[in-house]
Amino acid sequence: MSMNTFGHLFRVTTWGESHGPAIGCVVDGCPPGIEIDADDLQVWLDKRRPGQSRFTTQRKESDTVQILSGTFEGKTTGTPISLLIENEDLRSKDYDDIKDKFRPGHGDFTYWHKYGIRDYRGGGRASARETAMRVAAGGVARKVLGAGVVIRAALIQMGPNRVDPDNWDWEEVDRNPFFCPDAKAAKEWEGYLDSVRKAGSSCGAIIEVMAEGVPVGLGAPVYGKLDGDLAAAMMSINAVKGVEIGAGMGAAALSGEDNADEMRMRGNDVTFLSNAAGGTLAGISTGQDLVVRFAVKPTSSILTPRRTVTTGGEETEISTKGRHDPCVGIRGVPVGEAMMACVLADHLLRHRAQCG
Amino acid sequence: MSMNTFGHLFRVTTWGESHGPAIGCVVDGCPPGIEIDADDLQVWLDKRRPGQSRFTTQRKESDTVQILSGTFEGKTTGTPISLLIENEDLRSKDYDDIKDKFRPGHGDFTYWHKYGIRDYRGGGRASARETAMRVAAGGVARKVLGAGVVIRAALIQMGPNRVDPDNWDWEEVDRNPFFCPDAKAAKEWEGYLDSVRKAGSSCGAIIEVMAEGVPVGLGAPVYGKLDGDLAAAMMSINAVKGVEIGAGMGAAALSGEDNADEMRMRGNDVTFLSNAAGGTLAGISTGQDLVVRFAVKPTSSILTPRRTVTTGGEETEISTKGRHDPCVGIRGVPVGEAMMACVLADHLLRHRAQCG
Amino acid sequence: MSMNTFGHLFRVTTWGESHGPAIGCVVDGCPPGIEIDADDLQVWLDKRRPGQSRFTTQRKESDTVQILSGTFEGKTTGTPISLLIENEDLRSKDYDDIKDKFRPGHGDFTYWHKYGIRDYRGGGRASARETAMRVAAGGVARKVLGAGVVIRAALIQMGPNRVDPDNWDWEEVDRNPFFCPDAKAAKEWEGYLDSVRKAGSSCGAIIEVMAEGVPVGLGAPVYGKLDGDLAAAMMSINAVKGVEIGAGMGAAALSGEDNADEMRMRGNDVTFLSNAAGGTLAGISTGQDLVVRFAVKPTSSILTPRRTVTTGGEETEISTKGRHDPCVGIRGVPVGEAMMACVLADHLLRHRAQCG
Amino acid sequence: MSMNTFGHLFRVTTWGESHGPAIGCVVDGCPPGIEIDADDLQVWLDKRRPGQSRFTTQRKESDTVQILSGTFEGKTTGTPISLLIENEDLRSKDYDDIKDKFRPGHGDFTYWHKYGIRDYRGGGRASARETAMRVAAGGVARKVLGAGVVIRAALIQMGPNRVDPDNWDWEEVDRNPFFCPDAKAAKEWEGYLDSVRKAGSSCGAIIEVMAEGVPVGLGAPVYGKLDGDLAAAMMSINAVKGVEIGAGMGAAALSGEDNADEMRMRGNDVTFLSNAAGGTLAGISTGQDLVVRFAVKPTSSILTPRRTVTTGGEETEISTKGRHDPCVGIRGVPVGEAMMACVLADHLLRHRAQCG
Repeated sequence: MSMNTFGHLFRVTTWGESHGPAIGCVVDGCPPGIEIDADDLQVWLDKRRPGQSRFTTQRKESDTVQILSGTFEGKTTGTPISLLIENEDLRSKDYDDIKDKFRPGHGDFTYWHKYGIRDYRGGGRASARETAMRVAAGGVARKVLGAGVVIRAALIQMGPNRVDPDNWDWEEVDRNPFFCPDAKAAKEWEGYLDSVRKAGSSCGAIIEVMAEGVPVGLGAPVYGKLDGDLAAAMMSINAVKGVEIGAGMGAAALSGEDNADEMRMRGNDVTFLSNAAGGTLAGISTGQDLVVRFAVKPTSSILTPRRTVTTGGEETEISTKGRHDPCVGIRGVPVGEAMMACVLADHLLRHRAQCG
Repeated sequence: MSMNTFGHLFRVTTWGESHGPAIGCVVDGCPPGIEIDADDLQVWLDKRRPGQSRFTTQRKESDTVQILSGTFEGKTTGTPISLLIENEDLRSKDYDDIKDKFRPGHGDFTYWHKYGIRDYRGGGRASARETAMRVAAGGVARKVLGAGVVIRAALIQMGPNRVDPDNWDWEEVDRNPFFCPDAKAAKEWEGYLDSVRKAGSSCGAIIEVMAEGVPVGLGAPVYGKLDGDLAAAMMSINAVKGVEIGAGMGAAALSGEDNADEMRMRGNDVTFLSNAAGGTLAGISTGQDLVVRFAVKPTSSILTPRRTVTTGGEETEISTKGRHDPCVGIRGVPVGEAMMACVLADHLLRHRAQCG
Repeated sequence: MSMNTFGHLFRVTTWGESHGPAIGCVVDGCPPGIEIDADDLQVWLDKRRPGQSRFTTQRKESDTVQILSGTFEGKTTGTPISLLIENEDLRSKDYDDIKDKFRPGHGDFTYWHKYGIRDYRGGGRASARETAMRVAAGGVARKVLGAGVVIRAALIQMGPNRVDPDNWDWEEVDRNPFFCPDAKAAKEWEGYLDSVRKAGSSCGAIIEVMAEGVPVGLGAPVYGKLDGDLAAAMMSINAVKGVEIGAGMGAAALSGEDNADEMRMRGNDVTFLSNAAGGTLAGISTGQDLVVRFAVKPTSSILTPRRTVTTGGEETEISTKGRHDPCVGIRGVPVGEAMMACVLADHLLRHRAQCG
Repeated sequence: MSMNTFGHLFRVTTWGESHGPAIGCVVDGCPPGIEIDADDLQVWLDKRRPGQSRFTTQRKESDTVQILSGTFEGKTTGTPISLLIENEDLRSKDYDDIKDKFRPGHGDFTYWHKYGIRDYRGGGRASARETAMRVAAGGVARKVLGAGVVIRAALIQMGPNRVDPDNWDWEEVDRNPFFCPDAKAAKEWEGYLDSVRKAGSSCGAIIEVMAEGVPVGLGAPVYGKLDGDLAAAMMSINAVKGVEIGAGMGAAALSGEDNADEMRMRGNDVTFLSNAAGGTLAGISTGQDLVVRFAVKPTSSILTPRRTVTTGGEETEISTKGRHDPCVGIRGVPVGEAMMACVLADHLLRHRAQCG
């Protein structure tokens, strides 16, 4: 990972600001001969698209992705795949009254100090809009992984409200506007999020991403560990403040006995009796389900006035009136899936390189 | 990060197994003209050295580091710095009775499947012994950062027992065998860990690493974020299952108001009224203290018999009798500091490259 | 360098085929605050543009470059700069009768065997059209280097006909259709190239690229040598078969005395009495003019029938009727300049990173 | 390639100065399960070892390589292979009288200006001694490639004296002290080099490296071209000033007809009727012999006094009395083979990653 590229062999380079003419990415290293067209990518982008319920930003973007290179007669050629989405609903004027103020909890302050310049329109490069290209690239990655690897994610906590694992139902995830796997919790979250939104506030969330069907052996010790790359990938998503694999932070409180996933034979295959490891040992996939969670902080753009300073060094207050997600974690669900797909595709190629 | 190298401009490549003749690393990209000798590195290695109390492995290693290249007349020359530590206390026989069994929670299983070969003596490359070289490299990184950046870490949770933040005293960290900043907790942990050890069990831990004096502007959006690289660095340490920045996983439960660190002027400087962000916004350092936490799972090598299988596919039990740390997280404290130092040194050079 | 990206800190990723909707590139790592607009890049693209004389391909492309990201209010922001050129004059039909035949000396054969797929329209990714994006990126690189570094190139040999160094005149380079620095040679080349073109044949060329004003100290031993990166950069240009620095292949025939560029003082500065080294010693720039030459083989697409085979394994003949350059080396002149600029910009940032 | 590491998947990092305690390298990414021991590497080092005839430096080094990690029970484990050679015949005093003078044609001047520090003993990191580790790593690379790929090199020009291709005999290469494939030329070179040596001068050379049995398909357009990586690899060898593939610089003078290697069927296989391309088209191997040449300039350390300046800015003369090779190109032969092996091993893994 380096600047605007991630991955080593399956490499994704993204570009673009939220208020420029377009955003895009280049996917390099994709194996040849894979059937793919724009629809294969659009289906994932549609999951992430804003404005689909009252709970996400009302910015209207069709997010229609175009494939500009790298395919011929419906198949990948092994050359770089260029993807592009035009920006549509630009209202840069929304940002005029905050252009000299730093939004607390936002990258305004650090961009200004690092680069001496700041594209104040919607956060520029720091905008969550960049994640659309991750989702598009993730669609390519899924094709590389094939149908045998199933990657799904769900919102398991909104604000302080956690789902009940006993209620987990993957089919429920597509039935509510929160990607919540617990029908009961989803119902309660509606009221909760309405109150947050009406208060001009925002809330955080926790997303769980799971990959089934991952072959044993992906990952490269010691600085190319699968979990190290997953941690970097998830932490690189806007607003993420924590990443867990398997038992995660809770592993600290386990006993050695509870942490050690015991093994038995099932026919000729080894089977594990638990999955505290979350599908990875010593940085290499075990063949169990890969389980990653990440926490998203509350959207920093809120209506509630906050104390801040201006670029000129004056103390002031700020209240952000643009169109924002009260819980940006919701749209983080397809993004987390995409990052999982990209990391796995990269490691699949890396494993094949070294071990044949 | 890739395989056995981490960092982009300040690059560390480690090599060696726990039961080979030596372990070592190559530090490439270090600026020239920095005064350094082996003692500057040894001081940090001595913190990590095993066998210093009854609470760590009784393996006896002096861990004396040699500088084989890259310095001339006491200063770095800008060429690769090769560091080497000879292995001393090898008792490979300890491992004879487990050589065909997979230790639950250990990398045995994944190495075997990935590489078709397994160095069963002490875990081979998966051994925590590799972290000695991270500590040595971290010593070089501290020199690059200079005295203005202070990096310290502490054990803030052992098993289920958390320190009381109100008792935090950095000076206490060096007074007890746990790097615990809370004298009262340290006292209680003695009894707790003795009981864990005597039971042939093990426990996990949480480490907090803090860097003070970090200049504003380090980090590169969007895939070279400072927090993304810190997450990868910490997750690459043996047995780590979770990484947090600032409010971490708890950020999910914060309100937008509590999450937004407000700003005021202090003289000509901007000051933040809180640090939920943990010192980074949009992946770039804010100039506040950088705060990173990571969770270490319990040591997988325990005396308590666990169900497992053999490489030949037979069901069996295993009880690991080698010399192991009941709480490997303790020795993770200097390792966490080292990884923080390496990531910051790398980003310092990267920032200087792009922004002068 | 890796696949479709080159450079380490000043990184250029190109994409696109000659017969797709567009070609483009992403320039990552550019320092912020540099004034730049599309015209600054267009001036170099116009030098490379086809169809400007009867001596280059008659394909009509305006090659108008668009900047899609990475600038704000006329300045670079430090975020990725996305550049795009639409393809205009597509005549894929031209290629229908060669779609099953391998053109000798062309990448058809190797693409087919490597990828199992072949975009036969104009060479796909192997088309020299890709070099347009190098030229555009080179325009950005020149801005990074600033006005103090002057990069110029010239065609010094066409077919077997070499210029006379005594006639060298940089101003002449822009007065003839060959970028030839020798007015007399340029006149003779007209007749020569007309005869080559009319014969349905093609010829090779040698280009010399010179950079003046390069500061001493750029380059990183031993695998990041300035000359190593220049060699890779030039050899990556389509059809290049040889690269020389300074005395080049002729260095073999020099005596130790003639090879050693002696030094004297000129005021407080060191001055060299000759430049056999071509501006680099031990991989690091000396401050003298950097001198690089590269040889371009004759265009492989010729009218003269050549023996070849089909994808189905049948023996046949081929005669390529598309619109091609009889001497593709001519348009290699601005491409060589661009690669020099990109390598120097990258090394400028790399040097600043390590040495401040 | 970056600083002291080259290769992407088969990665070699070298370290060490000519007058430090040792030199070494780390080979990362090697596939597991390959039988290898130190003797497999020593055989190549013995070819490069100094002091084997009166025509190479009289420095006495056994160059005994040790494998410190990465193998277990005689096989590679997939973890980093650390190789080390102790320096033996250190006579740093030889350099005392040149420590303040810049040797013309040597890296003294550029190291001093870049790093502000200079290890004057034998050139420090710029010494050709570094190439011993390339040769050792090349031994590992050959094992990765397997017996089907045969890599051989020869000295084809010494000073202005070229071999006669009609006399080429690979078996002759091991019979003379020059790795010369032409018995007649070798005989003449003896007298020539004796006169150069006695005159206190030095001379350059050209080496040709050939790889037979390379599968079709290695190489990755457009910046990961096989020839681009070969050019970088060869140009990174000390004193190299030019690199050619196939027809090389001479390609400029070929007609399109002569340049196009025609194809016919031989049974079910395609066969080429010539090899102007040198085994690569569009950066990808054709399956023909890979043919690379590079020119080595004369050793810069000569007895003949040369005008130079001191680090303090005074004009003076220098005459280098250390133990040096009158024709350093001779020992470049095994180094060129090693670089070819490393590049091919890297591309073999890269190809397997993307194309299976």
